[in-house]
Amino acid sequence: MSEPLQPIVVSGMRPTGRLHLGHLHGAIANWVKLQSNHRCFYFSADWHALTTSYDRTEVIRESQREMFVDWIAAGIDPERASLFIQSQVKEHAELYLLLGMITPLGWLERCPTFKDQKEQLTDRDLNLYGFLGYPVLMTADVVLYKANAVPVGVDQIPHLELSREIVRRFNFHFGEVFPEPKPLLTEAAKVLGTDGRKMSKSYGNAIDLGESAESTTKKIMGMVTDPSRKRRQDPGNPDVCGIYDLHKVYSPPEVLEWSATGCRSAGIGCVDCKKKLLEKLAPDQERLRERRESLLARPGDLDELIRIGTGKARAEAQRTMAEVREAMKL
Amino acid sequence: MSEPLQPIVVSGMRPTGRLHLGHLHGAIANWVKLQSNHRCFYFSADWHALTTSYDRTEVIRESQREMFVDWIAAGIDPERASLFIQSQVKEHAELYLLLGMITPLGWLERCPTFKDQKEQLTDRDLNLYGFLGYPVLMTADVVLYKANAVPVGVDQIPHLELSREIVRRFNFHFGEVFPEPKPLLTEAAKVLGTDGRKMSKSYGNAIDLGESAESTTKKIMGMVTDPSRKRRQDPGNPDVCGIYDLHKVYSPPEVLEWSATGCRSAGIGCVDCKKKLLEKLAPDQERLRERRESLLARPGDLDELIRIGTGKARAEAQRTMAEVREAMKL
Repeated sequence: MSEPLQPIVVSGMRPTGRLHLGHLHGAIANWVKLQSNHRCFYFSADWHALTTSYDRTEVIRESQREMFVDWIAAGIDPERASLFIQSQVKEHAELYLLLGMITPLGWLERCPTFKDQKEQLTDRDLNLYGFLGYPVLMTADVVLYKANAVPVGVDQIPHLELSREIVRRFNFHFGEVFPEPKPLLTEAAKVLGTDGRKMSKSYGNAIDLGESAESTTKKIMGMVTDPSRKRRQDPGNPDVCGIYDLHKVYSPPEVLEWSATGCRSAGIGCVDCKKKLLEKLAPDQERLRERRESLLARPGDLDELIRIGTGKARAEAQRTMAEVREAMKL
Repeated sequence: MSEPLQPIVVSGMRPTGRLHLGHLHGAIANWVKLQSNHRCFYFSADWHALTTSYDRTEVIRESQREMFVDWIAAGIDPERASLFIQSQVKEHAELYLLLGMITPLGWLERCPTFKDQKEQLTDRDLNLYGFLGYPVLMTADVVLYKANAVPVGVDQIPHLELSREIVRRFNFHFGEVFPEPKPLLTEAAKVLGTDGRKMSKSYGNAIDLGESAESTTKKIMGMVTDPSRKRRQDPGNPDVCGIYDLHKVYSPPEVLEWSATGCRSAGIGCVDCKKKLLEKLAPDQERLRERRESLLARPGDLDELIRIGTGKARAEAQRTMAEVREAMKL
């Protein structure tokens, strides 16, 4: 079997609820692009979902199906990318265990996410073994497929650096088995929620991916804009406006120009600006909704796609693990 | 399929070198006894061997074969006990990962072995993620087979208590899946090495299991006895003598009596005492040696035994994991 010529990309998402426009433009749109010139493995990180919410597992199964539907509706092609469920490829757990044997505790304790999340998620105790080891599992997820690149945002760079350190340590002790995964920095579009904060399910300010045109329209029309533009005749600042951020994603350059200039000069009102946005956004949402419904109407086909994707991932993972065991003389 | 009526026992040993008489009388003899009224799962803990010596894996494969041979030569019956290799039952890694998600770091950091070994094994850095998680993996090893009992020495009681805590926490969150494994306290025979310290490969004072009669005789004849009995006519103290400890294992009561009385009264010399011991010990070693050789001469049969044992263990492990996933809604 010849080596793949295309670089390999691995990325996952936690199945913890419905996806929204923040996920779509922050990650999935980029995954769709990567398909054209990479071998892609996209997975539901159900084991990762446990690291912060082992006591809320009831959400996982249903979210997972919806998530795969969202991905495909948004343009992920299961013929080109392997879509799979992490927990159904046991090799992730095996490699996590093996990599943990060589990972110094200090590397994990100093990981910024470990410290940050412990401080932020104060409603639960995160001093858990699995939570501390999250970057080890993430490393296993990626190197199991010998990924050359991992699409990440700036905030995840420290994680990936930790993965690269673990890989270097493994290769040093056991020989060159894994390539060092490089960050594939993606400028994720900024997507604010209806209240002007970052779009997030937990803030209750999200517009779901494939929400109906009607519901999307209602949310957009009620959305917070530049808070200092109090009246129609006040000039506004598009740089602090969530509607303008959405124009960047949905509208062509001339509309962007129209919006920015009109806002700064008070030439247009926010209502005009939102209606213009909806000319593109509402049909786009409607199209996603239809695709979602058509996929959800054929649950057997969806199962089959996931089964095939998981099988492809497993075959790749097993090939890597055979090499790992040989290198470690296990 | 009906539930087994016999209690289930699980125990493992790290494949890190040839076994010696300390292993035989400290653990294996007890395993042999347990076979008669328990369903037994005995495994080569090759993943555990990594927790303290990931950089010396070359010893694992060969030690593992020798270890299975030693077990069988010593009386473990592969028809009654399932003999298997931990790393070949991936469910151990999966359950380790899942149990790690609910295990507080504090429980692991306070574990006496973690603190002790870090202090004792100063030639290597044990501040590793896998080493800290050793009790989590041990818990997975045991509960994967729904063991009711684990044969342990007094020093391992804190580990098992930790396992029981993890089990209680799991059952509390996800329902009663696992029985709490109870300690099966075994009085392990005290076996000293030729230099009077605890018998240990790393001290270079060990008599290997199945060493030839000639070599065994030579080592026993040169073995340190009560160090304060300097001359033949000095009375000795059998309670501090490694030879007397071996008599307890090998000799009938009347010989034990003869040895103790003769030692205390200087009625017998150490040479007499050692020769008497060898009357039983040398042929026993010879018998073990022969059984070992006959097993080693049929490597295909040995592979087949391990394959069958591993298959039995895997089937059991898969049944448990199906329950675990259902309970966790994964």
